[in-house]
Amino acid sequence: MKKFTSIKDITDINELLTLAKNLKKKPFEFKSFGANKTLGLLFFNPSLRTRLSTQKAAMNLGMQVMVMNINADGWQMELEDGTVMNTGSQEHIKEAAAVISQYCDIIGIRTFASLRDKVGDYEEEVLNKFIKYALVPVISLESAILHPLQSFADLITIDAVKTKIKPKVVLTWAPHPKALPQAVANSFVEWMRNSNVDLVIANPEGFDLAPQFTAGVKVLHNQDEALMDADFVYAKNWSSYTDYGKIGMALEHWMITGEKMELTDNGKFMHCLPVRRNVVVSDGVIDSENSLVLQQANNRTYAAQAVLLKLLQDEK
Amino acid sequence: MKKFTSIKDITDINELLTLAKNLKKKPFEFKSFGANKTLGLLFFNPSLRTRLSTQKAAMNLGMQVMVMNINADGWQMELEDGTVMNTGSQEHIKEAAAVISQYCDIIGIRTFASLRDKVGDYEEEVLNKFIKYALVPVISLESAILHPLQSFADLITIDAVKTKIKPKVVLTWAPHPKALPQAVANSFVEWMRNSNVDLVIANPEGFDLAPQFTAGVKVLHNQDEALMDADFVYAKNWSSYTDYGKIGMALEHWMITGEKMELTDNGKFMHCLPVRRNVVVSDGVIDSENSLVLQQANNRTYAAQAVLLKLLQDEK
Amino acid sequence: MKKFTSIKDITDINELLTLAKNLKKKPFEFKSFGANKTLGLLFFNPSLRTRLSTQKAAMNLGMQVMVMNINADGWQMELEDGTVMNTGSQEHIKEAAAVISQYCDIIGIRTFASLRDKVGDYEEEVLNKFIKYALVPVISLESAILHPLQSFADLITIDAVKTKIKPKVVLTWAPHPKALPQAVANSFVEWMRNSNVDLVIANPEGFDLAPQFTAGVKVLHNQDEALMDADFVYAKNWSSYTDYGKIGMALEHWMITGEKMELTDNGKFMHCLPVRRNVVVSDGVIDSENSLVLQQANNRTYAAQAVLLKLLQDEK
Repeated sequence: MKKFTSIKDITDINELLTLAKNLKKKPFEFKSFGANKTLGLLFFNPSLRTRLSTQKAAMNLGMQVMVMNINADGWQMELEDGTVMNTGSQEHIKEAAAVISQYCDIIGIRTFASLRDKVGDYEEEVLNKFIKYALVPVISLESAILHPLQSFADLITIDAVKTKIKPKVVLTWAPHPKALPQAVANSFVEWMRNSNVDLVIANPEGFDLAPQFTAGVKVLHNQDEALMDADFVYAKNWSSYTDYGKIGMALEHWMITGEKMELTDNGKFMHCLPVRRNVVVSDGVIDSENSLVLQQANNRTYAAQAVLLKLLQDEK
Repeated sequence: MKKFTSIKDITDINELLTLAKNLKKKPFEFKSFGANKTLGLLFFNPSLRTRLSTQKAAMNLGMQVMVMNINADGWQMELEDGTVMNTGSQEHIKEAAAVISQYCDIIGIRTFASLRDKVGDYEEEVLNKFIKYALVPVISLESAILHPLQSFADLITIDAVKTKIKPKVVLTWAPHPKALPQAVANSFVEWMRNSNVDLVIANPEGFDLAPQFTAGVKVLHNQDEALMDADFVYAKNWSSYTDYGKIGMALEHWMITGEKMELTDNGKFMHCLPVRRNVVVSDGVIDSENSLVLQQANNRTYAAQAVLLKLLQDEK
Repeated sequence: MKKFTSIKDITDINELLTLAKNLKKKPFEFKSFGANKTLGLLFFNPSLRTRLSTQKAAMNLGMQVMVMNINADGWQMELEDGTVMNTGSQEHIKEAAAVISQYCDIIGIRTFASLRDKVGDYEEEVLNKFIKYALVPVISLESAILHPLQSFADLITIDAVKTKIKPKVVLTWAPHPKALPQAVANSFVEWMRNSNVDLVIANPEGFDLAPQFTAGVKVLHNQDEALMDADFVYAKNWSSYTDYGKIGMALEHWMITGEKMELTDNGKFMHCLPVRRNVVVSDGVIDSENSLVLQQANNRTYAAQAVLLKLLQDEK
């Protein structure tokens, strides 16, 4: 593995899953493995779980970590080639990525979708330019259209909790007052399609995800129908892909409530957090015993740790 | 000890004081004790001494440290239960506290008083909600109404410097251009009342501290009378508790000057820092040999280290 | 060595250069040397290379590092003596420097020129006041008028690349849309004058550097003439020293282009970064094989590591 930006970077998902499960049991077993290795974490956007869990994962491996809020701590970055940089931007991503590579053995980078430039977002402009100019392996800490560490943690969670060989997993759109990226949803679909689950997506009309992610997956515009007999209900808001970046109005009835969970087969509730309570999900559901949100957050550490360990091993 | 938010969390103050004194002599003696343990430091508010001394204390014990400016780095936090979170706040403290607990063995949290909501401040709303939902021990790095690590460092300082069995300690209000919390003053009173000192509080009328802290303590509105024969003069501004959060006007004569120190018995000057020179205290006094402000700051490390070590020991 | 703020703090440049070259070959050879030692990095201004390379250097030596954006994380600092601090500033540099010294074995500090107060800048007011009150060795991470870690890295770079005993090194002014400090230029001149190179400075009229730095150095106002047969071309913008802090208009023709590089003797291109492409230097030049900018950035680690190691050794 030379980078980790999508499930496509992984040769053997089951091997990585087994590694993560073993690390969860013995987090410090590879403590000497990261000696003299440095992880640089670059945040273009806010982060709590990713920031802390990835640091923790690296420290569990004995790595050193340097964290940088790149806009606040450093210089405004130029992405375009050939620009005459005589206005705002102060440093080209070409230099930034190559320079940071000199100080780090692995670089993690978080960057959100613009939600204005659909083509740029879906081409992963920032992430891919960074990777192009970086000299060391790069890990996505959430990019414009994918959040692979989250999805891997979600897979670890479902794997640990499931009681059926092929559980029914429903990814359902949920309301939100602000326009959010499609990254978590796209990524979850990508990982679930490669797992032994029965995946159904539920979203309002006009909120279908990008077809390159959902081709072949059952998509329903009726949430109740989708939730029927579900084993896992993954709620998440995303803004429109078609009418790019737009939010839905008067769709409050898509909130996950206790009543809706009763349609499921004693379904477990999942969300990547942060979550707006009583907008995305009712207090009753997220506070219930069937809520897996804390387990998901906990598994972020072992997802990141497995990925970092794999990158360190493959580097040798 | 399961948390450290007040002197009330300590079973045996003398034992903790002895521990701190020993750590000051041999700071690295317990270096292996914190191996594979992680301290998370969460700042809702600015910090210099607390930020650096608590990091240093944890590293002296071999712990790993993750520091986060929670508002700037993460998400805006919701404190109220049952809120429909469809406006500003992005993450409920319920999730935040539980999630961060997954990545840390001990969490330190700094949060200031609102100085608007007296009831909420004095109920320690933020700190207590965080503790309620946290799954690991929590240390206060200053809360709305208390600053126990500062007071413990003050105790260590007085203990090291005192030449009498029961010294006279005067806590005096001092002028300040902005409204400040009562936390340092409340906390100092709490710790001194439990120590073998003769405690006197001096403040202008209208600036009496909350009665639950001062009941039974001599409070004088005449600063000169209070300073008479003092061994230690602890200067600190606080805004009004009665007229909550208001600052005093035309009270410049409460500044600690060389003339006032002459009323004392060669008294030592103390302040928690940061201090506004020539407003709270004259240059002459803070720069004199009798000033203990740097010793106080130095003892912050050993106060924090003793508390962290005790928490780690009691966890086992 | 008790501090590192200028080449003047170094007794033997060749010894330090040799140390840096050895550390580059074996970065972890002195890993046990920094055990239980803490480096505090204080940033008054943005930083990418310095922030990461100095952390990396310290970790290579086994030191612990605490990083603080002093304005954002802490308190607004007062520099003047005797001020009645009843308006903006919250903490005097006297306390801040002494207090931070209690938690660190070495302190690094970055502070930029005001570009308004020429006298204050050239007296290194902030840095020198900090050093005056600090109780441990201080490293400049760029000060108002000097950037010694950058210049030392530049020396390491030239030393590694040069093919002549006494290469011709041209420091040339280059255009920039904003007013920049003279620190990198002053510092480069200081280090090159103490090295075995033929130094020439090229800048437009009105942009001569401070005479205390350039006395005896050839200064040309004709860039083409200066570049003739150069082995190294170091481009850097600086605002006017004479008309202090002013930027030059209509001087775009001072940009370094491929055409200009053809005047040199297959000259290498250098810049400290961040650089504004196609303003300071054309894409063609910085992207060419003759560009040393990444090597310069890489050598920042070993420059810092040599300085830290020397300070630790001399402390013993």
